[in-house]
Amino acid sequence: MIVITALETCDVRFPTPTQRDGPDAMNEDPDYSAAYVVLRTNSPDDLCGYGFVFTIGRGNDVQKSACEALAYLVVGRRVEEVVSDLGAFARGLTGDSQLPWLGPEKDVTHMAIGAVINAAWDMAARRDRLPLWRFIAGLRPQQIVNQIDFRYIADVLTPHEALTMLNEAKYKKAERIQNLRDRGYPAYTTSPGWLGYSDEKLARLSLAAVAEGFKTIKLKVGVNVEDDIRRCRIARKVIGDKVSMAVDANQRWDVRNAIEWVKQLSQFNLAWVEGPTNPDDVLGHAAIRCAVAPVPISTGEHPQKRIIFQQLFQASAVDLIQIDATRVGGVNEILAILLMARKFRVRVFPHAGGLGHGELMQHLAMADYVSISGSMEDRAIEYVDHLHEHFVNPVRVIKGRYVAPSAPGFSAEMFGTSIREFAFPHGEAWRKSLSVGGSRPERADVM
Amino acid sequence: MIVITALETCDVRFPTPTQRDGPDAMNEDPDYSAAYVVLRTNSPDDLCGYGFVFTIGRGNDVQKSACEALAYLVVGRRVEEVVSDLGAFARGLTGDSQLPWLGPEKDVTHMAIGAVINAAWDMAARRDRLPLWRFIAGLRPQQIVNQIDFRYIADVLTPHEALTMLNEAKYKKAERIQNLRDRGYPAYTTSPGWLGYSDEKLARLSLAAVAEGFKTIKLKVGVNVEDDIRRCRIARKVIGDKVSMAVDANQRWDVRNAIEWVKQLSQFNLAWVEGPTNPDDVLGHAAIRCAVAPVPISTGEHPQKRIIFQQLFQASAVDLIQIDATRVGGVNEILAILLMARKFRVRVFPHAGGLGHGELMQHLAMADYVSISGSMEDRAIEYVDHLHEHFVNPVRVIKGRYVAPSAPGFSAEMFGTSIREFAFPHGEAWRKSLSVGGSRPERADVM
Repeated sequence: MIVITALETCDVRFPTPTQRDGPDAMNEDPDYSAAYVVLRTNSPDDLCGYGFVFTIGRGNDVQKSACEALAYLVVGRRVEEVVSDLGAFARGLTGDSQLPWLGPEKDVTHMAIGAVINAAWDMAARRDRLPLWRFIAGLRPQQIVNQIDFRYIADVLTPHEALTMLNEAKYKKAERIQNLRDRGYPAYTTSPGWLGYSDEKLARLSLAAVAEGFKTIKLKVGVNVEDDIRRCRIARKVIGDKVSMAVDANQRWDVRNAIEWVKQLSQFNLAWVEGPTNPDDVLGHAAIRCAVAPVPISTGEHPQKRIIFQQLFQASAVDLIQIDATRVGGVNEILAILLMARKFRVRVFPHAGGLGHGELMQHLAMADYVSISGSMEDRAIEYVDHLHEHFVNPVRVIKGRYVAPSAPGFSAEMFGTSIREFAFPHGEAWRKSLSVGGSRPERADVM
Repeated sequence: MIVITALETCDVRFPTPTQRDGPDAMNEDPDYSAAYVVLRTNSPDDLCGYGFVFTIGRGNDVQKSACEALAYLVVGRRVEEVVSDLGAFARGLTGDSQLPWLGPEKDVTHMAIGAVINAAWDMAARRDRLPLWRFIAGLRPQQIVNQIDFRYIADVLTPHEALTMLNEAKYKKAERIQNLRDRGYPAYTTSPGWLGYSDEKLARLSLAAVAEGFKTIKLKVGVNVEDDIRRCRIARKVIGDKVSMAVDANQRWDVRNAIEWVKQLSQFNLAWVEGPTNPDDVLGHAAIRCAVAPVPISTGEHPQKRIIFQQLFQASAVDLIQIDATRVGGVNEILAILLMARKFRVRVFPHAGGLGHGELMQHLAMADYVSISGSMEDRAIEYVDHLHEHFVNPVRVIKGRYVAPSAPGFSAEMFGTSIREFAFPHGEAWRKSLSVGGSRPERADVM
């Protein structure tokens, strides 16, 4: 009998340079990190499933221990049973009778559950020798409905409504799959706009982004409004009026100063203002959106579960959303959020600014295009050229578009050499770093 | 120099019997547990600070590791500096640049921060040889304002508004302190109403509660509506019309079935319906409250931060709230929530159904009465006669009222013998239990 024989975890951290200002308004010195999960099996072909939670450093050990704590729910399970009903598998993890006290569905336990669920989807797709987006594209509408836990969201999305939307979308699936293979999926880039870059570097990288084919760039803002106005002016001048420009405040503001700040930036015809305030403040986002209309407002990398997204939609609090495959409860909960977004006609711009986000999110965005929304030219996946070299099947972005991945699975697997080198605190990269008094190894031009 | 020399942690779990149905609609087999924190110092008088996070079993190890992860922010800090500005101490913990990625302010890291902050308040009160409620009562209005992080809530509560309310309340402080010493603070009891009790036991314990002087009892509901109607009828008949009866669904319902269910129970003149749906669904609570009016709606033991409470108030989603000293970021965040509740005239009924909740919450409810709301006869602290024997200064409830505690500190300290016996998994209680095939030690009539 083929079973899951182990749930292995690793604390992997990639130190980032400290010699300049932090990359965004809230996270000054991130060490992009993963609490990495491997589901091992006794399958003769060494079938495995890979997943991870993204963090920015401290606490990654806590996140790793949360992943380990799930072993008792997973080890010994039959692979066939898991992959043939991933919806039941997911509900089994979120439905433990003691763990949800820590959340429910909003803490490191929930993110750990998401990593394990994603590893199970990876395993299922690998087993069928399909990239995950194609695996999902192969699911019938009712099979997708079966993935979703409608508990607490049924007043906004019923199984019947979900099925109706999926049935509408299914007729063009083959055409869309071909379209993705031919043309890929739009990307936008955050590379030019990190805080701490000189004006010259901002201008140079903005111009380079346009030359590379990106149709949207994003700037980090939120520390100093005069700086932000100057930086937006520089970037807008360089990219012209045909390329879109978004800004991201990384939840820096209160409601009142968000409104004042955004009004001062609205002259730059922003594609969206991301993360204006605390991610759990649904009513705050609604108030900001109302006050700064028509500037589009968004959030999404931090809200922890479908129930927050549901309220963002109900309250008309956002024009578009980010989603993050390692924040919520894995593929299953992402599907629920995508279906609600489809119902409310809210566009999705997946978060992919960290470690391995692009690798995961490309599959979910493409599956959304094929099976749910049927749209991609009005949306884009974030892209930053950072840390992809550690992944066995890294993203490929050509002329501003993600190339549809063809390797089996969810693209979450990292190289063993990378994991060993960056394992915290005993990997080579950290032993060197910590032995010289806490300074960190340099990496060339990251983020 | 007197400094914090160590942050010690322990995983303490109290196994509860499994031979009957679970105690509430969502948590079937809780092992009431604490991730216990001790701040040690090099003070000649062995000054310490005690705090903990309550959990219901699995995941308590993750919670403990989250507490440990904070040591680097605490160990080596000067005691004088910590206790003389607890607001700055609290903001220092929540303001780490990497940990908030895991939340922000909504995960085991945030609860760990709360435990450490509470331990610091315990230490401060012990140092002044005052019970915590008296310590807080001794703070001037501006000192209380200084405790609070107004970030993200300033659109609902400004420092000036907070100061105005505190100044209004301050004139009767001495009278209220005396009143608490003379008469204590009202308690209500959940003891009669756990799911799984026979009708006979429900009736007997309800009658006993009235005889003991409780003015309110609470029944767990939410699994079967016919059972709930029958149980409410029995309890109401036994307690009469002069004693209040509340029910608690422990977040069991969707919005739609909450409305249907509550309408069927409204005939029993309920004091409140607690936890009707997911604790993060602010708009769901508002919809339920609107549909079942005038039945009072409440929630509070699970919302994780001031920003959710703020929205519950903004959306008129609740008539009253529970608060839990081990869910949010400690005393400082509780003070913010109490001030917002005061502004919105929402009554507070602290959650004290678990392990050590009553020990902590009595101080905060009494401090609220003295310094903030000025009211106590229209509210009550939950009481369950369970596990208090493990605390060095256990609560005392006499004739349905909490006796104002007089021992210095926050009453969070547990006996070393209890900690050793119930340490998981190597304490005596667990070694016995786990060595006989996973069955648990019996405890007489707990919960």
